[in-house]
Amino acid sequence: MAASITEKLAALSLNDVKVYSHDAVKTGEEWKAALDKTADVPASYKLSKTVVFKPKQPKSDPQILLLALTLDETSANSGAVTKAAGTKDARLATPEAVTAALGAATPQDSSPFQITSENSAQVQVVLDAKLVASELVAVHANNSTETVFLSGADIKKYLESTGVKVFETDFTLAAVQTVAKTEAKKAPAKPVKNSAAISDAKLIGVGVDKYLDFSGWYQQVLTKGDMLDYYDVSGCYILKPWSYSIWEKIQKYFDAKIKHLGVENCYFPLFVSAKVLEREKDHVEGFAPEVAWVTRAGDKELDEPIAIRPTSETVMYPYYAKWIRSHRDLPLRLNQWNSVVRWEFKNPQPFLRTREFLWQEGHTAHLHREDAEAEVMEILDYYSRVYSELLAVPTIKGKKTEKEKFAGGLFTTTVEGYIPTTGRGIQGATSHCLGQNFSKMFNITVEDPTAKEGEKKDPLFVWQNSWGLSTRVIGVMVMIHGDNKGLVLPPAIANFQVVIVPCGLNNKATKEDREKLFDEVDAIAKRLKKADFRVKADLRESYTPGYKFNDWELKGVPLRLEIGPQDIKKNQVIGARRDNGEKNPIGMDNLEADIDALLKKIQSDMYAKAKDLFDTHVVKVTKWEDFVPALNKKNLILMPWCGVMQCEDDIKDRSARQAMDGEPEDAKAPSMGAKSLCIPFDQPSGEDAITENTKCPQCGEKAKEWVLWGRSY
Amino acid sequence: MAASITEKLAALSLNDVKVYSHDAVKTGEEWKAALDKTADVPASYKLSKTVVFKPKQPKSDPQILLLALTLDETSANSGAVTKAAGTKDARLATPEAVTAALGAATPQDSSPFQITSENSAQVQVVLDAKLVASELVAVHANNSTETVFLSGADIKKYLESTGVKVFETDFTLAAVQTVAKTEAKKAPAKPVKNSAAISDAKLIGVGVDKYLDFSGWYQQVLTKGDMLDYYDVSGCYILKPWSYSIWEKIQKYFDAKIKHLGVENCYFPLFVSAKVLEREKDHVEGFAPEVAWVTRAGDKELDEPIAIRPTSETVMYPYYAKWIRSHRDLPLRLNQWNSVVRWEFKNPQPFLRTREFLWQEGHTAHLHREDAEAEVMEILDYYSRVYSELLAVPTIKGKKTEKEKFAGGLFTTTVEGYIPTTGRGIQGATSHCLGQNFSKMFNITVEDPTAKEGEKKDPLFVWQNSWGLSTRVIGVMVMIHGDNKGLVLPPAIANFQVVIVPCGLNNKATKEDREKLFDEVDAIAKRLKKADFRVKADLRESYTPGYKFNDWELKGVPLRLEIGPQDIKKNQVIGARRDNGEKNPIGMDNLEADIDALLKKIQSDMYAKAKDLFDTHVVKVTKWEDFVPALNKKNLILMPWCGVMQCEDDIKDRSARQAMDGEPEDAKAPSMGAKSLCIPFDQPSGEDAITENTKCPQCGEKAKEWVLWGRSY
Repeated sequence: MAASITEKLAALSLNDVKVYSHDAVKTGEEWKAALDKTADVPASYKLSKTVVFKPKQPKSDPQILLLALTLDETSANSGAVTKAAGTKDARLATPEAVTAALGAATPQDSSPFQITSENSAQVQVVLDAKLVASELVAVHANNSTETVFLSGADIKKYLESTGVKVFETDFTLAAVQTVAKTEAKKAPAKPVKNSAAISDAKLIGVGVDKYLDFSGWYQQVLTKGDMLDYYDVSGCYILKPWSYSIWEKIQKYFDAKIKHLGVENCYFPLFVSAKVLEREKDHVEGFAPEVAWVTRAGDKELDEPIAIRPTSETVMYPYYAKWIRSHRDLPLRLNQWNSVVRWEFKNPQPFLRTREFLWQEGHTAHLHREDAEAEVMEILDYYSRVYSELLAVPTIKGKKTEKEKFAGGLFTTTVEGYIPTTGRGIQGATSHCLGQNFSKMFNITVEDPTAKEGEKKDPLFVWQNSWGLSTRVIGVMVMIHGDNKGLVLPPAIANFQVVIVPCGLNNKATKEDREKLFDEVDAIAKRLKKADFRVKADLRESYTPGYKFNDWELKGVPLRLEIGPQDIKKNQVIGARRDNGEKNPIGMDNLEADIDALLKKIQSDMYAKAKDLFDTHVVKVTKWEDFVPALNKKNLILMPWCGVMQCEDDIKDRSARQAMDGEPEDAKAPSMGAKSLCIPFDQPSGEDAITENTKCPQCGEKAKEWVLWGRSY
Repeated sequence: MAASITEKLAALSLNDVKVYSHDAVKTGEEWKAALDKTADVPASYKLSKTVVFKPKQPKSDPQILLLALTLDETSANSGAVTKAAGTKDARLATPEAVTAALGAATPQDSSPFQITSENSAQVQVVLDAKLVASELVAVHANNSTETVFLSGADIKKYLESTGVKVFETDFTLAAVQTVAKTEAKKAPAKPVKNSAAISDAKLIGVGVDKYLDFSGWYQQVLTKGDMLDYYDVSGCYILKPWSYSIWEKIQKYFDAKIKHLGVENCYFPLFVSAKVLEREKDHVEGFAPEVAWVTRAGDKELDEPIAIRPTSETVMYPYYAKWIRSHRDLPLRLNQWNSVVRWEFKNPQPFLRTREFLWQEGHTAHLHREDAEAEVMEILDYYSRVYSELLAVPTIKGKKTEKEKFAGGLFTTTVEGYIPTTGRGIQGATSHCLGQNFSKMFNITVEDPTAKEGEKKDPLFVWQNSWGLSTRVIGVMVMIHGDNKGLVLPPAIANFQVVIVPCGLNNKATKEDREKLFDEVDAIAKRLKKADFRVKADLRESYTPGYKFNDWELKGVPLRLEIGPQDIKKNQVIGARRDNGEKNPIGMDNLEADIDALLKKIQSDMYAKAKDLFDTHVVKVTKWEDFVPALNKKNLILMPWCGVMQCEDDIKDRSARQAMDGEPEDAKAPSMGAKSLCIPFDQPSGEDAITENTKCPQCGEKAKEWVLWGRSY
């Protein structure tokens, strides 16, 4: 019926447009992965995104759909699209409507090229100005298994040739500004009027299922849970007070720990000259592709471009060479709380992969290797405790393989976490022993203190460590604990551990009843604050208890206390746990002690639940044929391994290929290959212990250690 | 006798080289100022610096001087110069030696062009590779009143034509690295052996007189006092733990204050898109020339350059528009502790004018103007208390004139300090009321809560404030309190408030005597730590008490406790105040209370002394002819003023010109014009009160208020 895509384009003198075929894809991430595996794809391009909306219209009017064609990286919500087209609230069009209007099998299969002169009256297009300005954009041809690459200008040209009405708009500011504003205003501007109206309250809740669309859920839980907001520079995010306060608590905990060790804080500049950055070759090779360069100030070109630190080894160590004048200056232990920039071109992910992130970086120098190594382990232990004691997140401690270690260092230790929903591992924080590599590069030496008077000994190169923990920890915590109601925060780091909501006032309640109840809530809040709990009394007038329940559940407050006139009479409050929903009365007499115990219980239960999920998803594999099936069941894998780098590459390749070629039931599993996460310090023992005869299941060579493998972030 | 400079250059076919004449200059800063006032000077050039050293040589050898010719911005100490020339320790050549070898009247008058084929055997040149690579360099011709502009290559060409031996070297890394290292190693590597050797200890002390060479002193007191180190990116400095710990104390104090007000911390990205940055015109005009731009990541050019925040108004306010959905979301009060970048091209000055600096920036939005204005004053009060209570620095609170206010804001309040040594004012911190200007630009509105049901009222634009306090405070504190022995830190912010030094062991002391004394020192330290003092017991074995005294005086520790065997017998310690040198015994029985009182006394005495110097250097002027003479006596000036911007410009011009054309005794005074520092909130009253008849002494128009004027940083 319809012309083929190449015919359509040829009509515009766009010849030789190649159509690439691949597996069906649903998300941008999948599409990118599919194209990565497709031969002859252009080296550089931007992904597009097509979303079809149905604007609110009088039923009598002919139904017109709104196709939003944007860059995948552009954040364009329905409000922004609506505003661009000058229509009223738009909702996602139903699959049936999309199929009817465009002939797409599913909404994911919709494409701008399904718009033709024949159906162009039933559709309008909102076109992302950034897409139009892009040199090469990947667009689906007829459905999600076919991709063509065209310039934004040509795509626009095509659309215009169909006669479809096109609204071109710049979403960058629009999204941030008025549109999002009118959108967001909706919910609280019309507070729910009575307690029955809980269903309305759901408007503010998470609208995506964690288990069906994890990345959509993650985005919503972060933004609706008030943790962060998206930003108009791609890969950068705003840390709102709700998440920043968690970071402050982590800072306070870890800062005290390292100061007790004798580490001092300092601040080195954000900028590093090319010459210094490029001093250590292995190291800079690891970072070079991601370094952001300042080349201009005001309207003046700088004589030499200046880098923004991706990490501070080469920034700091020239000064270590200067400051360390004798063994008496050792150990030198400095730490910075700062931000670093790594301009990743992979898909950004809030907290997990961002172009700027907050962290601490410790950099120490020691006279003896043993002291350096002992510190590496001490710090790793603190990292593991930040996860377990504060974030209720279990991790596995171990050493990185040669392939995965910090470039330029001697060895890297790590705490590895596990995200049950995706079955992927995630690097939690790393503590590196740099050995003497950097001290040799930067000439950081001291005279040998064992030299006798007059004796000539060679100077000693110091032993160095570096170690870092970033805001990534917050993302890991959210992914592990959050649920379909929103965030679930462990009491140890929640900004409010307890929220108190006045309840149980019916329509007959007088002003005095209300005041009495509110006073009681206020008094309990004060009592708990005095006992050093972080407490919020939610005394907002115009919201129902149900609205408030949802609001605080979304934000993950660990414990909600409900109190109504009946409870006052019974000298109790009702405690509702966020983590498991349990509700129980708590007597007022022992309130502080009971709440303390309850918060501790919530913290330990959250940890235990996550630990159980982790433990039951680490599968021991000793035959290669078990590797991919176990991986595809969302497990991490513990496997004896030979320690050869080539074998690690092979494991990644083979597990990626097998996942693709696997059984039908594996078709939906990510085709990403497995990489080594760590060589756990806690090695299987007893009959599982590695012996002379243990072989590496992948290559058949002699195995050296059990290694943890997995798909990973 | 010698050929003129133009003849010398013409011999190299460098014709048409113009010689610019100006006042004699001593420092780079003066030179720059002199050239700024000289007509037809090239728009862009780099200043050079000529320093003549005398290397250590056998007396029998013919004396050869070492002339170091570098860019003014290059930090090349004698160690680096020596190393480049392959000679041993060099000291500054005496004026006589410089005159004898080069014919320069004073060392400041030395110039590379004084080297000719006739004297080139008596001199060697160390030449800065960065200077050679520079396109246009200002070099003195025959003396410091004459300047020529040449390329670095031509300067090198000239030097080579004389036959002088030239060592070209890159100081950037050299300075940081090995050279500085060997330099610095000297002092502590050979600790002084007995207490008589205090003179040796002076090697580590400040070698420049505060009152003779303030900027040289400032640099030394900061580096030798361990506050900061210079960095190889110009205008950026390393905050070492000794200064960073002061910043941490200020953070802790101020953070608690604002959190109590209800301000929350957050983190916005470092990057801002051009579009957003340029949103508010007045505002961006103020910052545009100093904005650093990232244009490249790895080896990829970015599609659009991205700015590094110079401040975050335009970064944050688009999101305020989104987040503020109703009057219930007000006030919105956020703060960030971060760093910002302002790529100043003026001479950088540690802490005072740096290209990156640490600060806090508060950004708040209010429903009512009165609430916004009240907050402006509350914050200003906290700023004033950071100075007075923590840093023992007096300031004057007031409002900025229209000319000096924050670009784009409604009005700016400020705390202004005074640096007695230079007689210059310094802006301490500012708290701005932005009014509704930004909320109108960014469309930050709420519906009018006074609107009755069904009534239609226009949306209200919110009232905004922003306020910031930076690490500049540390520089102000150092400049005011430091002396020729080094830093003087107020007890409230000193990392160590008390240092305890064991003393009084003579040559006959046994190992047991020493151990007993050291144990006692350790016990006192523990006792004081328990009472929450910040204490250091200096138990270093291989240093004399004298060395330790100097070391801690250099670092500014407020109180030194000396304790020897005799003191133990007398059940006392000797307390030595850093601020005024007073020494008194303190009984052990009441140690904690007495030390607490003494530290409080030191803090208040330091403040009182600075306050007295400030108060006695604010001079009331009501006749224009008194203005410049008072200014030249290192005063700030309080003068009735008309409030007209043109008049402010005139005051600056006239005071600059008059300073130059003034009496001989003013010749050395800076020729910088005076600007308005603030309109003090505390206005003179009684017979000094402004009346209908009070005139502005500069223009004769009706005066509105007393305004504080001064040369300033």
